[in-house]
Amino acid sequence: MNRKELIAEIKKKKSCLCVGLDTDLEKIPGHLLEEEDPLFAFNKEIIDATAPFCVAYKPNIAFYEAYGLQGWKSLEKTMAYLRQYYPNHFSIADAKRGDIGNTSTRYAKAFFNKLGFHSITVAPYMGEDSVKPFLAFKNKWSIVLGLTSNSGARDFQFAPVGMEQTPLYETVLRKTSSWGNTENLMFVIGATKAEHLRKVRAVIPEHFLLVPGVGTQGGSVEEVMTHGAIPGEIGLLINASRSILYASSDKHFAKTAASEAARLSQQMVKFFL
Amino acid sequence: MNRKELIAEIKKKKSCLCVGLDTDLEKIPGHLLEEEDPLFAFNKEIIDATAPFCVAYKPNIAFYEAYGLQGWKSLEKTMAYLRQYYPNHFSIADAKRGDIGNTSTRYAKAFFNKLGFHSITVAPYMGEDSVKPFLAFKNKWSIVLGLTSNSGARDFQFAPVGMEQTPLYETVLRKTSSWGNTENLMFVIGATKAEHLRKVRAVIPEHFLLVPGVGTQGGSVEEVMTHGAIPGEIGLLINASRSILYASSDKHFAKTAASEAARLSQQMVKFFL
Repeated sequence: MNRKELIAEIKKKKSCLCVGLDTDLEKIPGHLLEEEDPLFAFNKEIIDATAPFCVAYKPNIAFYEAYGLQGWKSLEKTMAYLRQYYPNHFSIADAKRGDIGNTSTRYAKAFFNKLGFHSITVAPYMGEDSVKPFLAFKNKWSIVLGLTSNSGARDFQFAPVGMEQTPLYETVLRKTSSWGNTENLMFVIGATKAEHLRKVRAVIPEHFLLVPGVGTQGGSVEEVMTHGAIPGEIGLLINASRSILYASSDKHFAKTAASEAARLSQQMVKFFL
Repeated sequence: MNRKELIAEIKKKKSCLCVGLDTDLEKIPGHLLEEEDPLFAFNKEIIDATAPFCVAYKPNIAFYEAYGLQGWKSLEKTMAYLRQYYPNHFSIADAKRGDIGNTSTRYAKAFFNKLGFHSITVAPYMGEDSVKPFLAFKNKWSIVLGLTSNSGARDFQFAPVGMEQTPLYETVLRKTSSWGNTENLMFVIGATKAEHLRKVRAVIPEHFLLVPGVGTQGGSVEEVMTHGAIPGEIGLLINASRSILYASSDKHFAKTAASEAARLSQQMVKFFL
């Protein structure tokens, strides 16, 4: 999916909501545990219910790896289902992968080719030759960690760099931008505060941002879109996971998840007028 | 495996060699492709042949993920084989994982519990709450990226931080050290040059270092051990992958791999006298 197509989907739905498929056997409704593949059964119902309100799905790969072989099968089935029935939804492998050149290429093949994801999150610490292999894949996106929403972001991402004591994350944004373009590179910006979003947009006005931290983590859709949107293009994917997936744990869980997704996407509508 | 046991194994074998199981279907001997599980067949022969000369094995997870479900099965079989027949060899999941708290815990469970690895490599960009969950697992090790051996290390790891313009990797070493101890934390130091090793040891004199970059990547065992060893304890795991695995591609490939492993470990012997 290219940038034009993604923006068209966002505008059509008046939503830039991304649903994080962080599927946890200990949290899904109990009745699903009798299914042959509870993870997939849950994902399928969530996807069917929330698809009208979101433009993207983001499975966090750790949640599937934790279940070994069976988890990987569930992930494969989830991706096959998305590709077949919801091909216009943007898929993100939240894997935060990164390694030296040839090894990064293998990660890229695993997620872009084998699993058919549109995009993958990438960790930047190892620099250019660890990120560029992902960027070499046509019509695929790399979403590089810029500023993350967890408390540990303070440890290194704000390290004051150089004569001007610029926070490290700005260096990461600037340097990484030069390795790709606005058609194959996005950034994870776990910032929901106005001042941070403005600073980020000053460095990267045109790149798409994947913004976690809305929903359970407490950020506001309003603030993110006011200070983070690209005029005319939005250029945001705003993620919520737990607040949607686990909105309820009874037999009607999917409907309740849909309501929560609808509620969040409703807050986005006014930005499309 | 705890630090004492690891050091005892290293001293017993007079070797701190780690064999990187970066198994690539396109490089293994052709006759193995007829096997039901070529990846595992290759790994098994390599392990059996090299075990006398090394103290550790390090599968790079990307190489297995690239083959999807089948790759994961081969990895599981490899780990089951190691745990059953070579329980005193230290195993490293070269995964370079890292995510927010609960998600890191899932990665830890996947590799420590499900696959039974002794240790895992961890990417530090997201800071304390992304690393600490790995450290919470008893008798397990986290090997955090400090200085990597690829050219991209220059992009961020040497970013000059703070008033004293200290390279970022030193900040990473210092801060990360405070989150664990010398019994559960190691660092990836892809440095084979004397000056870098000395600088690293000035910051972290007591931690084990995992050192790639020997063998195909060109570093010298002599230089690494001279400037990186902890007196009396060695405190190093020196990795070689391709130069051992693909030393030959005929029917006797395992024997040739063993010769190369023996050659590298022979260079280490004098440091144990």
